[in-house]
Amino acid sequence: MTIPLTLNPDRLFPSDSATREISRTLYQKISNMPILSPHGHTDPKWFAENQPFPDPSSLFIIPDHYVLRMLYSSGLKLEELGVSRIDGSTIETDKRKIWRLFAENFYLFRGTPSGMWLNHAFHEVFNINERLNATNADKIYDQISTCLERPEFYPRALYEKFNIEVLATTESPLDDLRYHKKIKNDQWKGRVITSYRPDPVVDPNFPNFLENLIELGKITNKDTKSWNEYLEALFVRRRYFIENGGCTSTDHGHPTAFTANLSKSDAETLFSRVSTGIASIEDAELFRGQMLTEMARMSLEDGLTMQIHPGAFRNYNPTIFKIFGQDKGCDIPKQTDYVYALKPLLDRFGNENKLTIILFTLDETSYSRELAPLAGHFPALRLGPSWWFHDSPEGMLRYRKQVTETAGFYNTIGFIDDTRALPSIPARHDVSRRIDCGYLGRLVAEHRLDMDEALEIANDLAYRLTKKAFNL
Amino acid sequence: MTIPLTLNPDRLFPSDSATREISRTLYQKISNMPILSPHGHTDPKWFAENQPFPDPSSLFIIPDHYVLRMLYSSGLKLEELGVSRIDGSTIETDKRKIWRLFAENFYLFRGTPSGMWLNHAFHEVFNINERLNATNADKIYDQISTCLERPEFYPRALYEKFNIEVLATTESPLDDLRYHKKIKNDQWKGRVITSYRPDPVVDPNFPNFLENLIELGKITNKDTKSWNEYLEALFVRRRYFIENGGCTSTDHGHPTAFTANLSKSDAETLFSRVSTGIASIEDAELFRGQMLTEMARMSLEDGLTMQIHPGAFRNYNPTIFKIFGQDKGCDIPKQTDYVYALKPLLDRFGNENKLTIILFTLDETSYSRELAPLAGHFPALRLGPSWWFHDSPEGMLRYRKQVTETAGFYNTIGFIDDTRALPSIPARHDVSRRIDCGYLGRLVAEHRLDMDEALEIANDLAYRLTKKAFNL
Amino acid sequence: MTIPLTLNPDRLFPSDSATREISRTLYQKISNMPILSPHGHTDPKWFAENQPFPDPSSLFIIPDHYVLRMLYSSGLKLEELGVSRIDGSTIETDKRKIWRLFAENFYLFRGTPSGMWLNHAFHEVFNINERLNATNADKIYDQISTCLERPEFYPRALYEKFNIEVLATTESPLDDLRYHKKIKNDQWKGRVITSYRPDPVVDPNFPNFLENLIELGKITNKDTKSWNEYLEALFVRRRYFIENGGCTSTDHGHPTAFTANLSKSDAETLFSRVSTGIASIEDAELFRGQMLTEMARMSLEDGLTMQIHPGAFRNYNPTIFKIFGQDKGCDIPKQTDYVYALKPLLDRFGNENKLTIILFTLDETSYSRELAPLAGHFPALRLGPSWWFHDSPEGMLRYRKQVTETAGFYNTIGFIDDTRALPSIPARHDVSRRIDCGYLGRLVAEHRLDMDEALEIANDLAYRLTKKAFNL
Repeated sequence: MTIPLTLNPDRLFPSDSATREISRTLYQKISNMPILSPHGHTDPKWFAENQPFPDPSSLFIIPDHYVLRMLYSSGLKLEELGVSRIDGSTIETDKRKIWRLFAENFYLFRGTPSGMWLNHAFHEVFNINERLNATNADKIYDQISTCLERPEFYPRALYEKFNIEVLATTESPLDDLRYHKKIKNDQWKGRVITSYRPDPVVDPNFPNFLENLIELGKITNKDTKSWNEYLEALFVRRRYFIENGGCTSTDHGHPTAFTANLSKSDAETLFSRVSTGIASIEDAELFRGQMLTEMARMSLEDGLTMQIHPGAFRNYNPTIFKIFGQDKGCDIPKQTDYVYALKPLLDRFGNENKLTIILFTLDETSYSRELAPLAGHFPALRLGPSWWFHDSPEGMLRYRKQVTETAGFYNTIGFIDDTRALPSIPARHDVSRRIDCGYLGRLVAEHRLDMDEALEIANDLAYRLTKKAFNL
Repeated sequence: MTIPLTLNPDRLFPSDSATREISRTLYQKISNMPILSPHGHTDPKWFAENQPFPDPSSLFIIPDHYVLRMLYSSGLKLEELGVSRIDGSTIETDKRKIWRLFAENFYLFRGTPSGMWLNHAFHEVFNINERLNATNADKIYDQISTCLERPEFYPRALYEKFNIEVLATTESPLDDLRYHKKIKNDQWKGRVITSYRPDPVVDPNFPNFLENLIELGKITNKDTKSWNEYLEALFVRRRYFIENGGCTSTDHGHPTAFTANLSKSDAETLFSRVSTGIASIEDAELFRGQMLTEMARMSLEDGLTMQIHPGAFRNYNPTIFKIFGQDKGCDIPKQTDYVYALKPLLDRFGNENKLTIILFTLDETSYSRELAPLAGHFPALRLGPSWWFHDSPEGMLRYRKQVTETAGFYNTIGFIDDTRALPSIPARHDVSRRIDCGYLGRLVAEHRLDMDEALEIANDLAYRLTKKAFNL
Repeated sequence: MTIPLTLNPDRLFPSDSATREISRTLYQKISNMPILSPHGHTDPKWFAENQPFPDPSSLFIIPDHYVLRMLYSSGLKLEELGVSRIDGSTIETDKRKIWRLFAENFYLFRGTPSGMWLNHAFHEVFNINERLNATNADKIYDQISTCLERPEFYPRALYEKFNIEVLATTESPLDDLRYHKKIKNDQWKGRVITSYRPDPVVDPNFPNFLENLIELGKITNKDTKSWNEYLEALFVRRRYFIENGGCTSTDHGHPTAFTANLSKSDAETLFSRVSTGIASIEDAELFRGQMLTEMARMSLEDGLTMQIHPGAFRNYNPTIFKIFGQDKGCDIPKQTDYVYALKPLLDRFGNENKLTIILFTLDETSYSRELAPLAGHFPALRLGPSWWFHDSPEGMLRYRKQVTETAGFYNTIGFIDDTRALPSIPARHDVSRRIDCGYLGRLVAEHRLDMDEALEIANDLAYRLTKKAFNL
């Protein structure tokens, strides 16, 4: 049976007719604003080389850990889904077969944001008008495949079609930014910038940390065994990222929000252990904490906005990690403290109003208890939007309801999509804009805001606050 | 003044008329489905002997810890409510006086699920058409008493009237299942099965644990001082429960979700302390944790679904415990970690898709932060419904809103009532079905699901997912 | 552009028309009930001396830490806002300039309770009909200034205009209650009572604790180096507060909810360290915990209701604390345990139904997990309303939704405003009444309560439960 796939123009607005009408009015004013995507994980090579995407499964299934985790939880094997094994053993390589498996199990995504993003991309990007299921799997596979070959589905064309104004990728300080340079040299009008993610050279537990230090020394011509020169090397690379990648922000994916503010000599001593590979677990945590403070100090100098994304227990499933490696959907959030963790950094830099530090969380209990009160006080702090597992309609609503009353709208920064799935970018921003308009619509309907205020806020959340927070 | 007691056919559906209409349509399709109750605490003796319930107070008040705790919190004494003291001192034995006290204070239950369940049972089971209060207490007492004497109010008749397809009780491995055997031998068509709850023989802090070990040895003819034979004895009893009680699941009420995965020799050494009564507090916790992993291993062999119900601080009030004993409404939830606690078990068995482990919580903060991400990844995990204090309209809504977007619907297992109050069973399932239809109705009204999907999910949540999760 | 400032009569009610109509009906029945304000921080001197408030900025901005924190978070300096520095350095003293800065930034308060309270006070108290902004700042400043000079805007007149029945201030046991005595002697009909807040003499970490002990000894003629006489001195002051300040409650602002129940000799030994200034951090926490239990014991004797307000990390920002001192909006909530923390106190006094202990929290995760289950069991416990950062529309709704199903309505105590901002008192109570009527309206619309029940509960929440809990 063919079931039509439609995107109702009122989707995600509250059902109550008075509220819905207000929400719709607000949304109409902002739905066509350009997309600012200052934090994400798309591949700059796509835009540099502008080659077609290979096939539907490689685009939608194999690299998307949201999709993989749900399918895996239902009992499917990652091998059946075409995920490469580290040992090179046989996996499914027939992309059409992988797609069929996905189509059969597409009902698993009911009620999830992944389901909504996928349907949005199918319909809006690939003009598919039937809901995917076992029966029409091949037909839809063909339809997407045919599209992918056409130039208007190449990465740069999609960027333009999506009305993206700026798109940030995320790179290690060791990256040479060759793709960003090429994009710039090509004089293509798209603005693809980088974000500076120093985890590989500031987290002693990062794979190949010591080799990374050596590499950092080489490319900066610094002695990265010396605390001073190590810091200089990091700063030099920030400058390089700004000049060659249009970088406006840094990103820090630490396991916790822990920060430290050591004396220079204590930091030096700690670094001597860290840089020689004899750091204990506690040393590693202390060092990461110290480096957040050092990064804040550098941000005060060079103006890069700082993003802190703590709280994930990475690679929680050792079996999957051993067989398939990182980023296969086995990261699990954990309880996250901000009050005690951030204090050393805030004691030193929290009162700086030239500094912007954006906080994210995977632990929703911190919204109203810790994050909103902190951001509602410290000039240096802003709150990132609901993140990762909470980048979803209900997650966004909880965020607004728990954050706004204490931190207001103006200590938040609008939406970031954080995605590696290019076709989902418009879907994600659209969900965010609709949920925000629904939330504002309710405030207006309950006479908690005037309509002119709501309109201004809708604009701020969709565009202006992001532009400001990231200096775009 | 007489105030009518009615059950509005639209109760618990969202008030917005568009959403309500959809919810009502969904509900109509599933409201008459048979009840699956694979986890509860009714007494199998009721169904084996099929004797009338003695009186309204003994049915509705004295054994119901939800009712007792609320009345006690308002200043009433448990003695006045007919709860037996351990020392045998005088308590109120006039059941009618107890009922009057309850009726006078019935307003305390406004807005609580207990109030809703009681009204549902009064109206639907006993045909009472006035709201209970001090004035009509005697009249209603008489009406219920008269009913209870009639055969259509005997336990088996109620089971049939309630359209129950399967009802599980909960027994210790030491139980001989005589009532289950009698029910089976009577060839009554009701399906009353047992659930295997090994706490008395796997929790070193359980009352009479050492005696229980000896008893376990006796009934299985195993040396329960030997680690190997102890495990065999537990497995033998699982087999006995499957064969004689139709058992399809185990249940584990540990204080925490802590698990362990010790080497055989470490486990043996630990067991030698535990089985000789010299276990420390840490030993006891470690042993409980190891036993969850052993139970998972056995489940892989015999197919029993595993239920983990952690997080209660049992018998928190020492005064009540000393005077009245266990289960008098003095259990208090506490903060519960799953991420670190379950890791040893999940490292070993989390990737098994032949295993079903159902997780419950009393700590709602774990829904979106820990439980949904875990169940949305591990093939062996499913999420139980909102439990105990959260088995309530708002509790259920929070559960769906916080769980669905990350774990989907298909990593949840439908509803279980967990009750010892037989007349409340239809009420509880009805609340769950209504809340789920209200939630689905909202998703449809907001164009987040199509109607055909919502209908299928409503069926899944009311029946199919439970049947599958418990192998019924 | 002039934008009208109006207060819609339906504000804060749910938008759905059926629910809104019920909510409105409920609200109309209770909106004019007198205000009971048994917990707050207004200055008794205002009512004793009945002098005009000096100017709009001194009334609305400078003393209000909600207002200050939001403005500070946006990058304004506290000096620009007229907040005095400890070192006496120059700050802005032109109150009109401060007001202009506030007006320019008034948009920051969109969607916050502060914004709502301010608009309510502007409109209802000062008859302002335009929304404040940079353009009309001077005009509105003038309008308020003119009002403030008129006798009907003096403190006593406002008290009467606001239909306050009783208003509690908060004093240290060292206070001589001169203003309360004067109010009483003046035979003014307003009832301004005190609340006994012993933190300065029971918290070893309180500024000047040792001097405070000496002062306590002097005014009671007791040897406050002796544990026995120290306790007597505290009790004597309670009696003094009851007799001279109409006191009916105590208030305890400890960092945690930790309680202890030491033997007399252990308590004596602990006090010998505490009273000689050699208490460790652990000693201080233990002592505070013991003192909560001692206070409960005294409450059983003299009938004072006890309020426990834990969970704030006070003066979190050391820079602000050093420059400006306490209470400048730098308090941050932290995770708060109640289950383990309160056990010693509850073990001893939890079953007393002559005792009333009201629990508050800044950690919403404790509502459904800990506080509702505790209050739904212990006769001595009641739950205070959503507090501080959660004294807001969404905060109140979450409170009702998470608390009611387990604790019912009758283990809660109605609303307290906890404010130092006199003009905001009617606004705050009005928000609470509206949100409660909206919540009840939803329960009626969803057929979870009958209308007569909702009406009674609306009355209970707006007035009767508060009166009872505080023995007013």
